Amino acid sequence: MHWLVPKEEKFFEMLTEQSENALEGAKELRAFVNDYSKFERSERKSKAHVIKSIEHKGDEITHRIIEKLNKTFITPIDKEDIHQMAVLLDDVIDLINAVALRFVLLGVERIDGHIIKLVDIIHSSVAELNKSIPDLRKLKDMKGHYVKIHSLENEADDVYHEALSELFHFYKNSIDIIKYKEIYELLESITDKCEDVANVVESIVVKHA
Amino acid sequence: MHWLVPKEEKFFEMLTEQSENALEGAKELRAFVNDYSKFERSERKSKAHVIKSIEHKGDEITHRIIEKLNKTFITPIDKEDIHQMAVLLDDVIDLINAVALRFVLLGVERIDGHIIKLVDIIHSSVAELNKSIPDLRKLKDMKGHYVKIHSLENEADDVYHEALSELFHFYKNSIDIIKYKEIYELLESITDKCEDVANVVESIVVKHA
Amino acid sequence: MHWLVPKEEKFFEMLTEQSENALEGAKELRAFVNDYSKFERSERKSKAHVIKSIEHKGDEITHRIIEKLNKTFITPIDKEDIHQMAVLLDDVIDLINAVALRFVLLGVERIDGHIIKLVDIIHSSVAELNKSIPDLRKLKDMKGHYVKIHSLENEADDVYHEALSELFHFYKNSIDIIKYKEIYELLESITDKCEDVANVVESIVVKHA
Repeated sequence: MHWLVPKEEKFFEMLTEQSENALEGAKELRAFVNDYSKFERSERKSKAHVIKSIEHKGDEITHRIIEKLNKTFITPIDKEDIHQMAVLLDDVIDLINAVALRFVLLGVERIDGHIIKLVDIIHSSVAELNKSIPDLRKLKDMKGHYVKIHSLENEADDVYHEALSELFHFYKNSIDIIKYKEIYELLESITDKCEDVANVVESIVVKHA
Repeated sequence: MHWLVPKEEKFFEMLTEQSENALEGAKELRAFVNDYSKFERSERKSKAHVIKSIEHKGDEITHRIIEKLNKTFITPIDKEDIHQMAVLLDDVIDLINAVALRFVLLGVERIDGHIIKLVDIIHSSVAELNKSIPDLRKLKDMKGHYVKIHSLENEADDVYHEALSELFHFYKNSIDIIKYKEIYELLESITDKCEDVANVVESIVVKHA
Repeated sequence: MHWLVPKEEKFFEMLTEQSENALEGAKELRAFVNDYSKFERSERKSKAHVIKSIEHKGDEITHRIIEKLNKTFITPIDKEDIHQMAVLLDDVIDLINAVALRFVLLGVERIDGHIIKLVDIIHSSVAELNKSIPDLRKLKDMKGHYVKIHSLENEADDVYHEALSELFHFYKNSIDIIKYKEIYELLESITDKCEDVANVVESIVVKHA
């Protein structure tokens, strides 16, 4: 049993493309932070450019989805849900790109354990989102995906708070505090965004089940 | 005269529960900042935990509201309004929790007069919101509540700007500037959020009056 | 051929008024930053007050639009579009006001080339938005306006990134870093907001064309 009428199948394919693009971005970000300290400044820039091109692709997919939505007659609620999913998945990719670029722009020199942990959580969260899309198509119960993404978001919160506390209790260099505060905040906001997508996915299933 | 059909009464009760929970959070935050300087670090943490548990309750109420909305047939506009009110009230509670935790994480040592004033304004604003809910049920004129919350938000803006100006003109320690800037911003954003709720409340009354 | 029925003409006029008010704000901001270094602190304050009064006017226009929307029967989608355009144009004005005030509150002493460039881009972007409104009324193709605003936003991104990189690679004074980071962020967010308006304008035309 599918909830999609034939002309809506195309949207489903585009959302899949978008979520796979997000996962690609999360993977590149993980490689980026893991190898960061081995890179020269110029290599960091070129790695950030790879993520930038993923972000461009995301923009292009979102634009295609919105254009198609505007030309398609489907019920307003579903239309709004698809639009919201497209925009939120695009936000995930934009934030992944923003944080990679930020490392370079702010001249971050040292990747700490909090950053590695947060990026791992982001990767797991985007991977779980990506797995939820085929289940959405089949209107399977989303509880499992939702609970996993929600608990990853809580985990990210804890790491973020720990990182922030360490920053303000042990760092003396205020420029470092500004840099890492910005990086941690951006990373944490990505897991929030993944949870927003999961919320929309769950509500679609509840409505159509 | 009520605008709610019987099955919508339940939403009204849940929104009341949510706004009372927000008021509880605002009261705890006020107690927290007023007694902050008397507390040891461990007491501060345990006080912040009390607010955290209020935030958990808020999450749970919001989730119940959304689940019920997804299973209930009511007109789309009202559905959207209820959803928005639930989410915005939850945001108020989340921000109250975030700011309490931030004091602890950032190792804030001194509560200044701007913080006390902002927290008092937040408390008044949430209390006014809470008073507006029974009037919403009866579709009474919301002008009084709206004007009060709007003027509290303006007051908070003025305190925030004064605090920011003092910070950048008299403080020399950049780590303190980072800390207090963050605290002031978070506090000010709570009164903005209260105004967002008031906007939704007013628009519901206008539509149904 | 117009897409507006007679009673909707009024909304169109109010949106025009709002976008002209935004342009007025962008012009004042440009004059403000260009002459900033010649001004005394008191003159800076009074110039910021001029922009504050434009922001007040924007609030008042938005409130009138929302009140009228709530009392008018038009199709839900258009109603939502008009509401969104009113709110987003108001956000543009609010941000212009916020950044002007921020210069004064943070005690910014030096306007750099990045700020001048960003403010020029903001002005061009708001001017383009303003030109798009009469074309929206006639349902003309929005592609030209949209492409222009989108490319201005990309240009602003580049300037913002360059500014941020310079800040973190060459500045040694952390209080200056905090100040300019805040100013650059606010300026960049205005061009994002202009693009949001352009997105809504384009989607209205697509739907009604």
